[in-house]
Amino acid sequence: MILRLSSLFLRTLREDPADAEVPSHRLLVRAGYVRRAAPGIYTWLPLGLRVLRNVERVVREEMDAAGAQELQFPALLPREPFEATGRWTEYGDNIFRLQDRRGQDYLLGPTHEEMFTLVVKDLYSSYKDLPLSIYQIQTKYRDEARPRAGLLRGREFVMKDSYSFDVDDEGARRSYQAHRDAYVRVFDRLGLDYVIVQAVSGAMGGSASEEFLATSPVGEDTYVRSPGGYAANVEAVTTVVPEPLPLDDAPAAHVEDTPDSPTIASLVDLVNARFPREDRPWAASDTLKNVLLTVVHPDGRREPLAVGLPGDREVDLKRLQAQLEPADVEPFTDADFDRHPALVKGYIGPGVLGEASASGIRYLVDPRVVTGTRWVTGADQPGRHVLDLVAGRDFTPDGVVEAAEVRAGDPAPDGSGPLELARGIEMGHIFQLGTKYSEALGLQVLDERGKLVTVTMGSYGIGVSRAVAAVAEHGHDEAGLVWPRELSPADVHLVATGKDAAVLEAADALATELSGRGLTVLFDDRPKVSPGVKFKDAELVGVPTIVVLGRGLADGVVEVKDRASGERTDVPVAEVADHLVALVRG
Amino acid sequence: MILRLSSLFLRTLREDPADAEVPSHRLLVRAGYVRRAAPGIYTWLPLGLRVLRNVERVVREEMDAAGAQELQFPALLPREPFEATGRWTEYGDNIFRLQDRRGQDYLLGPTHEEMFTLVVKDLYSSYKDLPLSIYQIQTKYRDEARPRAGLLRGREFVMKDSYSFDVDDEGARRSYQAHRDAYVRVFDRLGLDYVIVQAVSGAMGGSASEEFLATSPVGEDTYVRSPGGYAANVEAVTTVVPEPLPLDDAPAAHVEDTPDSPTIASLVDLVNARFPREDRPWAASDTLKNVLLTVVHPDGRREPLAVGLPGDREVDLKRLQAQLEPADVEPFTDADFDRHPALVKGYIGPGVLGEASASGIRYLVDPRVVTGTRWVTGADQPGRHVLDLVAGRDFTPDGVVEAAEVRAGDPAPDGSGPLELARGIEMGHIFQLGTKYSEALGLQVLDERGKLVTVTMGSYGIGVSRAVAAVAEHGHDEAGLVWPRELSPADVHLVATGKDAAVLEAADALATELSGRGLTVLFDDRPKVSPGVKFKDAELVGVPTIVVLGRGLADGVVEVKDRASGERTDVPVAEVADHLVALVRG
Repeated sequence: MILRLSSLFLRTLREDPADAEVPSHRLLVRAGYVRRAAPGIYTWLPLGLRVLRNVERVVREEMDAAGAQELQFPALLPREPFEATGRWTEYGDNIFRLQDRRGQDYLLGPTHEEMFTLVVKDLYSSYKDLPLSIYQIQTKYRDEARPRAGLLRGREFVMKDSYSFDVDDEGARRSYQAHRDAYVRVFDRLGLDYVIVQAVSGAMGGSASEEFLATSPVGEDTYVRSPGGYAANVEAVTTVVPEPLPLDDAPAAHVEDTPDSPTIASLVDLVNARFPREDRPWAASDTLKNVLLTVVHPDGRREPLAVGLPGDREVDLKRLQAQLEPADVEPFTDADFDRHPALVKGYIGPGVLGEASASGIRYLVDPRVVTGTRWVTGADQPGRHVLDLVAGRDFTPDGVVEAAEVRAGDPAPDGSGPLELARGIEMGHIFQLGTKYSEALGLQVLDERGKLVTVTMGSYGIGVSRAVAAVAEHGHDEAGLVWPRELSPADVHLVATGKDAAVLEAADALATELSGRGLTVLFDDRPKVSPGVKFKDAELVGVPTIVVLGRGLADGVVEVKDRASGERTDVPVAEVADHLVALVRG
Repeated sequence: MILRLSSLFLRTLREDPADAEVPSHRLLVRAGYVRRAAPGIYTWLPLGLRVLRNVERVVREEMDAAGAQELQFPALLPREPFEATGRWTEYGDNIFRLQDRRGQDYLLGPTHEEMFTLVVKDLYSSYKDLPLSIYQIQTKYRDEARPRAGLLRGREFVMKDSYSFDVDDEGARRSYQAHRDAYVRVFDRLGLDYVIVQAVSGAMGGSASEEFLATSPVGEDTYVRSPGGYAANVEAVTTVVPEPLPLDDAPAAHVEDTPDSPTIASLVDLVNARFPREDRPWAASDTLKNVLLTVVHPDGRREPLAVGLPGDREVDLKRLQAQLEPADVEPFTDADFDRHPALVKGYIGPGVLGEASASGIRYLVDPRVVTGTRWVTGADQPGRHVLDLVAGRDFTPDGVVEAAEVRAGDPAPDGSGPLELARGIEMGHIFQLGTKYSEALGLQVLDERGKLVTVTMGSYGIGVSRAVAAVAEHGHDEAGLVWPRELSPADVHLVATGKDAAVLEAADALATELSGRGLTVLFDDRPKVSPGVKFKDAELVGVPTIVVLGRGLADGVVEVKDRASGERTDVPVAEVADHLVALVRG
């Protein structure tokens, strides 16, 4: 196939689009791959669509090879199944909802657990039908609060989602592993640098859960890894819990005036100056900071929540939210404080917190706040703090919560060493769903003894359109995009330079020959465009092999340039077609 | 590729689904191709998805061969461009509308004129860039009042829509012709019986317009054809207008009592008995029936309308509506009559109709009501009619309208003979849009002299998912579906019968060989299913070639059955693979 630039629906731009925050967005727009239609909603121009289809092909081939079967659900879905699983409410503002002309409720599918569960219930009834893995590659919708970074976080996007159905947990584990293996092959073929990290399952329910993250400084996900091989999404990191301390070592708690100590640092300075500790100086990690928040449940109910954590750490809202899903977390407002007069802003201590306390506010603490730990914290009086307040002796929280930020150097939960933090783009997510959906929707089959058993499911997603951007993040330089062969919109980019008709004819003959041999040729046949502009466009568009026909033709050679390395080779005209076919076929 | 029935996600049904009105719907559900997810919204199961993809492939190949370039727009579209062209309002209840979390208006695209126009405006600026044809194959949405007949009229469906852009009308005609030629190739390859009929352009605007209708008794569209080759959608048929008659021949109009004449037939009997005509008996076609309706404009404005037509014909609401688009037509209610006391129900005549009349109601008549024609019609008094009322002498309507039903035997407008009526499924529609969208959205390019000219557009659609059903309507029998090779979900359906392990092994070897030679084999390897059930399923599923391995194997032969003709051939085992490859390759 020959794509001629003289007629291809393509315009490259020299300027970056105003709204582009990340390189992939900037370059995919400049090189004419995509165009913004609305916030988070993009049009795929011919070159972009070719790359998207290539990603789809890779995903499809690997899913098929793993024995999964493709089908296709609608995107416009009725409310009822989502009502049955509670997700109609749980999704909150994150889905697009609409009504038809009869006033029936619909949504635009963000993910299809319910529909897949129902179709299996519809068709299958026996353990003999299982295991089953089915998938679709489909346009999906999420009403993101902040669509950003072009294709990386869109509101209309293409996903592969698959679901496995097994008669027991052992089968579910096998299906999970088969998907995991297929995902490794997919992301290897896409040429991405990626890590597989432990994840929390969130709104999807279920137990085991891992994410495939493309490592990238522009990624929205933070993950951790340790020298010993531990890797997790930051939401899934568990704190290493210290041993409890004996209760009888600490002095009795005492309330002190602590004027002019508005910050943790100033408080630490003050207590070190006025109330020095016998064994070592007080540190910020000896203060117990109590943060008030409002938990918003899917049904709209608002519940105050206090989180106690060492004063040297902030609450990581994403981590907290992951623990509380499907509920949302919002700031505690002045009006909220007004409703709870026991709370003295800036001096809140465990004394007024907890379900059994005066405020009745649920009080969860960081896992480091174990029995016997000794704290400086608010005394619930203006300008006063309490010192030597001992957990398990002087106060008992309602429970623990993983809400504190994870920091570089924190120990890995499996003892594999200090954690390092990095950023990644979530490309895939695999879950063991268990029976959450099959129970809610009544998917059962008869087992070998004729007894009804609830089917065990798995759920597996790949961001297909997002992969286009992730690969562009991974493969680009100052001059433009650099596609891996498997995804490139063409096999070679053929540039004919100069005004010599013989050059254009030779280039046309080469394009025709390569096309005849099964290659896709992006052919810059534009008659009135300068070589400089053609070279710039070729770098920007990013086909892995650039072939230049021009002055060298007089000496019987064609220049073959590797887009990634910049390496140029002069190849004799007579050999160039064979040379290129060999290059492309690898 | 081998699709093994032992694991394929497929269940055939012996019973017809309760809601299936037409054979394609019934059989596509029974044979496990599609499943209803909501009214007019379907899930594509693996076999159905394969057929859908085959239709897409045929369409894509022919569009590419015609020089059109593929891209892909979003389905979720912002309101603004549709506001600019007036279609946000014109579509009324027929589109799905929604708001995002910020309260911005969106719609689910039913067709993409606006978006295509804007992307060309975005990228192109010169006559040198044109002509251009671009297309997409995409999931689209319409909130149909009555989704019916399965895939034939769905609310979520797949369409190919393309658009041409030319600098002048001559170019636009060439682009239109290129699309027309490509459509002929597409529908030929789909194996459909179809007609190309003249059509009205409707809400899309523009001038020349033709539809490709698959001939089918279950089609929703009525079309006409004449022995001389005229063919048109019934909405587009124009009435042959008789010559005006001299005004001085007719007697003066006279009002008469016409008791007990509630119907046209009884009225005709009465006037023939009491007021016989000198030249011939009065006929129903001599009565002038005046039908009151309400026109509902897109902005909600309601306007009464009177349509006068010969009493032997009914108003065809679809024909009338096609003339009035984008307005809607509704019945005239009792409340409407109350608002217009001059209208005497059952006796309404031209005397109280017309914009200049007492009622002020716009009065349009059938084209047959030419000057000099002589009518029996209502006298606007209870129980009385007026006779010998002459058009152009005794009354003057506000205009003419094509609202009367077309009947078999009516003359074709081009003089090519009497019309015959038939039904069809609209598979494709091609329009010359002119400058409607380019003007509304400001799509102009510089011409050769540096002057801005408005681009001339064409719009071309193919119902891709509907084609699956149309082909199923065309190709089925009592036993099931009968696919053409090009669309079949598999090349051969291989049935292994009996419990002999050797048979299953031989079948497996054949499946493997055929798959290795590039064929897709649907392989019925189910160990515990009877030959009878396997044969029934093979007939139902409809793969064009059925291969049976069973008892014949002992004699060294395999049975090859043609699904369409039922013809069976015994082929020696050693030759069967070559035989099948030759069959499939054609």
